[in-house]
Amino acid sequence: MKCGLVAADGAVLHRETRPTPRVVVDARGGGRAVLEALLETVVELGQKAAADGHRVRAVGVVVPGIINAESGIVSAENLAWAGTPVLAELKAAIGDQHVILAHDVRAGGYAELRQGALIGTTNSLFLPLGTGIAAAMVVDGSLVSGDGYAGELGHTRFVNGEAAELCACGQWGCLETVASAAALARRYGVRSGRVVDGAREVLELLAQGDPDAEAVWKEALAALVDALVMYTTLVAPTRIAIGGGLVGAGETLLAPLREGVAARLTFQRKPEIVAAVLGEEAGCLGAALMAWDSITDESGEQTV
Amino acid sequence: MKCGLVAADGAVLHRETRPTPRVVVDARGGGRAVLEALLETVVELGQKAAADGHRVRAVGVVVPGIINAESGIVSAENLAWAGTPVLAELKAAIGDQHVILAHDVRAGGYAELRQGALIGTTNSLFLPLGTGIAAAMVVDGSLVSGDGYAGELGHTRFVNGEAAELCACGQWGCLETVASAAALARRYGVRSGRVVDGAREVLELLAQGDPDAEAVWKEALAALVDALVMYTTLVAPTRIAIGGGLVGAGETLLAPLREGVAARLTFQRKPEIVAAVLGEEAGCLGAALMAWDSITDESGEQTV
Repeated sequence: MKCGLVAADGAVLHRETRPTPRVVVDARGGGRAVLEALLETVVELGQKAAADGHRVRAVGVVVPGIINAESGIVSAENLAWAGTPVLAELKAAIGDQHVILAHDVRAGGYAELRQGALIGTTNSLFLPLGTGIAAAMVVDGSLVSGDGYAGELGHTRFVNGEAAELCACGQWGCLETVASAAALARRYGVRSGRVVDGAREVLELLAQGDPDAEAVWKEALAALVDALVMYTTLVAPTRIAIGGGLVGAGETLLAPLREGVAARLTFQRKPEIVAAVLGEEAGCLGAALMAWDSITDESGEQTV
Repeated sequence: MKCGLVAADGAVLHRETRPTPRVVVDARGGGRAVLEALLETVVELGQKAAADGHRVRAVGVVVPGIINAESGIVSAENLAWAGTPVLAELKAAIGDQHVILAHDVRAGGYAELRQGALIGTTNSLFLPLGTGIAAAMVVDGSLVSGDGYAGELGHTRFVNGEAAELCACGQWGCLETVASAAALARRYGVRSGRVVDGAREVLELLAQGDPDAEAVWKEALAALVDALVMYTTLVAPTRIAIGGGLVGAGETLLAPLREGVAARLTFQRKPEIVAAVLGEEAGCLGAALMAWDSITDESGEQTV
């Protein structure tokens, strides 16, 4: 869990990382443990802010999953939350403070839009390629919510037929089964018979000319090009910022994406494809910026 | 060209249809003839309004193609317009009247949202299946523009490999090459060796159990299901209104779309799939409603 104290101008005054409790999905207590750790973190950060002489003006909490921003109810399989009233629990824990609850990837997109690679855009996309793939869509100047459901580009289908793999979401051939960091490592292992430590190792093998690494990388690129062409045709972004662990590959990733997309587009507006700039801090910073932007009186004091 | 006079409450006071001049795309004058006919129509409707004792408060003009709403410049291949300053020409023709220029399908979506099948939705889709396929996307309460480029669902790819056909847009395997009314007629002709008069005849043959009609229909349905599942995963509509000529097929179209989409969705929010209700008038009505909504003082007088 990444957390921090952020001033009104976006300056990070304090940051820390805390372990997420191991979730035992089968056990009913798993989701509760994560929630308790979240509440404890928010309370303790408030205490730290007070000790440092700051007044907390608003609290921004971002989580994965499907978030109903109004009711504050969250379902997130990997946290063992199913209809969990996260916002109500937060309010019970920290009293009458102003709290914003949002989606982690969309918060990352918010941060990239406000202070990162998407500054100045009104139609753009933040696409972190990490363990999973979700997207933050900026459309006509606003971040799309879709009542918490929108942006699941990683779960649109880009592989058909026998090659399609079953995704954790229950669908077949999702982008995420081919082009996420987790998929790269898994597919390299299946293809080569060798277990790797993660996508980072696949990228190292790719740099060394390993043919299995090249094969799974090419398939990932092809699916990503398909996804970006589809997104461009439907939503017309002027800029696409790729984030997540895979963007560590730099031009090895970005150059073929640019070439592949440019070769496919005909009448569409051509987007710039760039690297996101805020890295792992994007979600945390976005949470704070969303919290700040949700209060009207920005008097320059600190928020979590 | 469909046109009319519409009161502030959406009541259609007068409607008429005028022929679009035949466009000779090779000849430079083709686009000009269409533009002249458009200007003449707007001027004459204004005269008719005045003769009937109405004051025109605003003019809404909707056209196909890629429309920059701010500059009023339009590119539309089938009208032989390429960077044509439609808004400036309109303003020169009718003086200082308030004019709105918009996309025809998005205007149809606007009408369905205000007075039709999408009333009360904040995330929804209007998808007319006509000669071509374009979409009007309602996201978080607003109709998406994407600077005039968004909504080209008909030009996202849903057929891969050797079966993919070249689309008029220059891409391969677009939804429009399989599931538009024009595609149904063309594909039936290729498959059966018999020329048909249009999609309507294919639907009649389908009702009679013609196996070639069944084959092209099934392929169209499969591509549409793919497209709707993708759209639902990415943008999370609560309702999808199918319009255009093909919706004349009624439950023959809608029932398999509902079943196909429901069978594919897992974690996504399930959209209602319904028929659009405003028919061919949607674009014309939407133009008027957009024009009315663009002026703040709605005093109840008539607009074109």
